[in-house]
Amino acid sequence: MGLMDSAHRTDSTDPSTPAHDSLPDFWAIIPAGGAGTRLWPLSRKGAPKFLLDLTGSGRTLLQATWDRLTPLAQDRVAVVTGAAHAAAVAGQLPGLDAAYLLAEPSPRDSMPAIALAAAVIARQDPDAIVGSFAADHVIDDVAAFHAAVREAVVVARTGLLVTVGITPTGPSTAFGYVREGMPLGAIDAPSARAVVEFVEKPDAATAADYLATGEYRWNAGMFVVRAQTLLDLVRRFQPAIAEGAEAIAADRSRLTQVWPSLTKIAIDHAVAEPAAAAGLVATVPATFGWDDVGDFHSLAALLDARAGSEGMRVLGSADDVLAVDATGLVVPGTGRLVAVIGLPDVVVVDTPDALLVVPRDRAQEVKGVVDRLTELGRDSLR
Amino acid sequence: MGLMDSAHRTDSTDPSTPAHDSLPDFWAIIPAGGAGTRLWPLSRKGAPKFLLDLTGSGRTLLQATWDRLTPLAQDRVAVVTGAAHAAAVAGQLPGLDAAYLLAEPSPRDSMPAIALAAAVIARQDPDAIVGSFAADHVIDDVAAFHAAVREAVVVARTGLLVTVGITPTGPSTAFGYVREGMPLGAIDAPSARAVVEFVEKPDAATAADYLATGEYRWNAGMFVVRAQTLLDLVRRFQPAIAEGAEAIAADRSRLTQVWPSLTKIAIDHAVAEPAAAAGLVATVPATFGWDDVGDFHSLAALLDARAGSEGMRVLGSADDVLAVDATGLVVPGTGRLVAVIGLPDVVVVDTPDALLVVPRDRAQEVKGVVDRLTELGRDSLR
Repeated sequence: MGLMDSAHRTDSTDPSTPAHDSLPDFWAIIPAGGAGTRLWPLSRKGAPKFLLDLTGSGRTLLQATWDRLTPLAQDRVAVVTGAAHAAAVAGQLPGLDAAYLLAEPSPRDSMPAIALAAAVIARQDPDAIVGSFAADHVIDDVAAFHAAVREAVVVARTGLLVTVGITPTGPSTAFGYVREGMPLGAIDAPSARAVVEFVEKPDAATAADYLATGEYRWNAGMFVVRAQTLLDLVRRFQPAIAEGAEAIAADRSRLTQVWPSLTKIAIDHAVAEPAAAAGLVATVPATFGWDDVGDFHSLAALLDARAGSEGMRVLGSADDVLAVDATGLVVPGTGRLVAVIGLPDVVVVDTPDALLVVPRDRAQEVKGVVDRLTELGRDSLR
Repeated sequence: MGLMDSAHRTDSTDPSTPAHDSLPDFWAIIPAGGAGTRLWPLSRKGAPKFLLDLTGSGRTLLQATWDRLTPLAQDRVAVVTGAAHAAAVAGQLPGLDAAYLLAEPSPRDSMPAIALAAAVIARQDPDAIVGSFAADHVIDDVAAFHAAVREAVVVARTGLLVTVGITPTGPSTAFGYVREGMPLGAIDAPSARAVVEFVEKPDAATAADYLATGEYRWNAGMFVVRAQTLLDLVRRFQPAIAEGAEAIAADRSRLTQVWPSLTKIAIDHAVAEPAAAAGLVATVPATFGWDDVGDFHSLAALLDARAGSEGMRVLGSADDVLAVDATGLVVPGTGRLVAVIGLPDVVVVDTPDALLVVPRDRAQEVKGVVDRLTELGRDSLR
């Protein structure tokens, strides 16, 4: 069943998997989209979340995604991003082959983006297994991530669409869920199970019910599948997208002409849901920490978890922050001193042209502020 | 009893008292000192409170003080300020005679400052009545202020030291109090009363007791007195200060030599308290609104009162503030957008080199932050 066995996998505790442990048929697709509106004013139209270092690691989320995937994929990485961000992506990823930097003329959601990448890769490597991983997620424990992807690749080689299911940390209403079925019993992928169904973002009561069953995991949009299998599924459920993606892959000069005609749809709705209903989807559980850093509340929690304690977290120069009896998150971004007194769980984000102050538990409302910028004639701040 | 009668006074409801209503023997002394530390980062060593427009009126507190006094004093105004601020004061008050801009080589508190001004004025006008009014207070109802000063001048001409007593709006522990005695029965100053004693800033219980008696008013440091009477009192209770002030007034070149030897003491302790004990002090009640704008809590309350409503007050350009379900005070000072979400009664002050976020009810603690700037090696921000 390929290059990998389970003993090999469980030994792999070093995050920097040696090159000889890479998977020669594995290609990574990184959809680099999403504005990260709820992380304004840090995240902007021109500098979306994935281009930012949100963890203070010295690497942006996109770079960290690259770093996580290249031990497995080496240089077999494709990035799909908006045309406006293609230059920034190329700048951040000097190792990315320009032929696999796919610039979307307009946003068409994830299915056209992933289908195009799969079609481009399939022309180069008809037996490729592709794994799609968003550019703006944060993952702790890279070894566990590699282990999950290796299992997913093993299962994907059998012709299934494999999703990596995130172990829920609570009854979140912000994610869709995957309902697990029976174990597949694969020798080299012992934790893989069938998927009964994908379900949309639930309300809080439904989410709590899901968790109580122990059968549900978060759908983080991590899919591993043979490129040809994926294209077959797209051809079956969204034939126009398959045709368009393959036409562009065959003749890249047709991108601007064909792209706008592609249906704007997420991969979940386009193929994952109907494929699950047809019994064609499997899942591998993630044992690693995962965060999509959806808002400043999540970001503060993430930094708390990394620091191993709570308090006033600083994303940037701690010398620029003076916190007195205050907790939460300060992002100093201008070299100015940021003094915060007597506020628990507050978020203060200082940027050269905009300043945000919001309690952590209302961080979701940042999106509403961004929506109002246009009304106020401050569209340039978006 | 002088130029003014009570009918004349009660007619004076126009804040811009006509020039012919000025008091020819009245001289204003404006002590322009105090750092306003609790208003950091708006107020700085180099730009103290009195040099700032804290009400959005277009005039600084110093200029507003000048505007309030010149209808009564015309050009008979002396300003005493730190040497570091003399140029700024001259720039803000083009009408101020340079001979009456007194620059203190070092801070010696209010008694030496006022004694020096009184000595300088007495050499020019031996019959002068001087009135001392801090440069950093905010007063509503200028007509009522003028009425109170006119009464105080009437009483001062009789040889008493007269303080304008502020009607307390609550049991403040931030001010000293004046305890009123019997009415003086002066025809042209019907509301004047004897002063029984000055008392230091009380604790909260004592302040509440004071208010319950109805006999106490806040001491805002507004003194009106014949210049010669004041100098006599200083000579009696602080002879070295009187001697030094008169020596400097006689030969201004001696300022830098004599000034450092003067006792550092407030006028309250130096002469007002012992003079009251000797039965030499009277008080006139203030019926005007008064605020010393001690911190951002007071400033927000002041702006609320002026706006006639509560909400998010903005001191500066309202276009630079986006408040969603947030109240308090924002001072935008850099042209950046300041977005505040979901925080009641919060203060956000945005300046080019420092940013402050603090709940209104902890505004007093700003002083502690300023004290820490030195420890942190950020002394330049003070």
